[in-house]
Amino acid sequence: MPALENLNLVPFVSVEKMMDLVLATGTETFLTELAAYIEEDFRRWESFDKVARVAAHSIDGVIELMPASDGRLYGFKYVNGHPKNTKTGRQTVTAFGVLADVDTGYPLLLSEMTILTALRTAATSAVAAKYLAPNGSRRMAIIGNGAQSEFQALAFKALLGIDNLRLYDLDPSATQRCKTNLERFGFHIEACSSAEQAVEGADIVTTVTADKQNATILTDNMIGAGLHINAVGGDCPGKTELHRDILLRSDIFVEFPPQTRIEGEIQQLPADHAVTELWDVIVGNAQGRRSDRQITLFDSVGFATEDFSALRYVRDKIAGTAFFDNLDLLADPDEPRDLFGMLLRRQAAQG
Amino acid sequence: MPALENLNLVPFVSVEKMMDLVLATGTETFLTELAAYIEEDFRRWESFDKVARVAAHSIDGVIELMPASDGRLYGFKYVNGHPKNTKTGRQTVTAFGVLADVDTGYPLLLSEMTILTALRTAATSAVAAKYLAPNGSRRMAIIGNGAQSEFQALAFKALLGIDNLRLYDLDPSATQRCKTNLERFGFHIEACSSAEQAVEGADIVTTVTADKQNATILTDNMIGAGLHINAVGGDCPGKTELHRDILLRSDIFVEFPPQTRIEGEIQQLPADHAVTELWDVIVGNAQGRRSDRQITLFDSVGFATEDFSALRYVRDKIAGTAFFDNLDLLADPDEPRDLFGMLLRRQAAQG
Repeated sequence: MPALENLNLVPFVSVEKMMDLVLATGTETFLTELAAYIEEDFRRWESFDKVARVAAHSIDGVIELMPASDGRLYGFKYVNGHPKNTKTGRQTVTAFGVLADVDTGYPLLLSEMTILTALRTAATSAVAAKYLAPNGSRRMAIIGNGAQSEFQALAFKALLGIDNLRLYDLDPSATQRCKTNLERFGFHIEACSSAEQAVEGADIVTTVTADKQNATILTDNMIGAGLHINAVGGDCPGKTELHRDILLRSDIFVEFPPQTRIEGEIQQLPADHAVTELWDVIVGNAQGRRSDRQITLFDSVGFATEDFSALRYVRDKIAGTAFFDNLDLLADPDEPRDLFGMLLRRQAAQG
Repeated sequence: MPALENLNLVPFVSVEKMMDLVLATGTETFLTELAAYIEEDFRRWESFDKVARVAAHSIDGVIELMPASDGRLYGFKYVNGHPKNTKTGRQTVTAFGVLADVDTGYPLLLSEMTILTALRTAATSAVAAKYLAPNGSRRMAIIGNGAQSEFQALAFKALLGIDNLRLYDLDPSATQRCKTNLERFGFHIEACSSAEQAVEGADIVTTVTADKQNATILTDNMIGAGLHINAVGGDCPGKTELHRDILLRSDIFVEFPPQTRIEGEIQQLPADHAVTELWDVIVGNAQGRRSDRQITLFDSVGFATEDFSALRYVRDKIAGTAFFDNLDLLADPDEPRDLFGMLLRRQAAQG
């Protein structure tokens, strides 16, 4: 019944509304619920139309479009990555996204995704760790204490019960800020003065540094048997965090191989190096962790289905709430073929 | 000076603001100014990063992302094409787009593009016709009198002086509506009862029908020597409007061959059939019309640079006006690396 709908309006979740939604839900609950959507979509991996992201590279960064569709819903995210942005007070990564109805092509949701991407990245890491981290993991090292670090900590607390953190960043003030931000959440937190110190006694090592260059955050000698490595920061061509020797000792798990081969830690390896797809582990086609001595590596780059899951979650979550505004985004003439007449009628109405 | 800017805000041109902008400018002036931006960007065609659109096809339609960048600005359009939408009171085509700064990745503009796409499609057709239509063209047939028809008429009036229209649509009420909408603009308009009748005496034939199927709107015998054909409606795989024999008698001009080979009228021809790129004509690398007897065909499918031009024009046009709202789209923490702290501070502010 078109007459009953406002077909021109698209629900819009602003940054402010997103913050309010997360806070009203509780960050850990939000991460847990979001992780369930992400895991659900990994379970039906084969029903998705998947493409590697569409990237426009420039000297200082990249702008990407990340579409995904399950045949009923279509989602895409716009996201940039500009490491130098912090010098001008901007975010390295900002994002927004749209969910649409495949049957009509009409957008159903426009949402900020800077905050939501941070949450979905952390939730995805935690989903992977559920299958890959040593049983009974309690202690996680976080190397790189920038914008993503607290989200990783809370996701691992919410989904795996991690309550002991060892933090390290080249910039001690970043570590201090991360520690201060997280203290109220019931963690035991140690600020470390080196990456070596941070990984001591850790069950899980999360690397989430921001520099756009090949770096060696972890060297081979730092990684003992049985660890799970959650490698988040290496996520574009020329940007890696782990020494190649670590990769050769690890069982490597990835989201979407065609994209990870280009963007992930495994860009350091031959294109035919064996990796396991995370969805195969989740549905039971492949084994995750199988021994106490095994080194597991989740080579996270972030895939479009995770953004799709996040948009799907937010859309369900805001229904019937005040956590969105309506945006006059779509032309909605009374007579669909009469787009020009809409202009004329507006002119007439203005006198 | 980040402290002086509201980095979170992105100018947003809603459908209502777009209508007001077009009306305040005057539709013909808007089309003329927009055509100048489009032509300017065709002139620097080689400076663009060009890719064929990224399409997600479904049974009832298609959702596409169309990115383009000149190295300083990046634009993309989201657009759907769902012919059955009119049955539920929706537009066949809706669109919105974003212009962003390549140096920072930050969006500079979010705009409705349903109306803007109609305008840019018409403006592009008129730009092409400036180079391809017979000198002194006054009379244009428009076959298909749907949402795009009036925009085509006004663009050809503004840029070429077309003041005599011959309209035909399978649905006579569409023709009548188009005629009524256009009468106030000083055209001589004849409603025709067949396509054959419409093309009689025409200098230019514009085909802009909407069915998603191979159709034959124009047959070979209808096209006499010297005509310019502006073929707008054939714009996706399986959707063409012209009989193949017309193509074989025409000199064919296209926007971006890799896309037009898939989506345009020339999908009916072998992949190596000679075509001329419009930008080559505009910069003088290739000849446009060269004789009174030549049949020229602009096989329009709509390319991402035209949307880029349109977004660039709108951005320049709204500066210092009230034709936009500010949208809280980008997370803007006081300390760029402290995204999570922004959440905490909002929580604290809420008590």
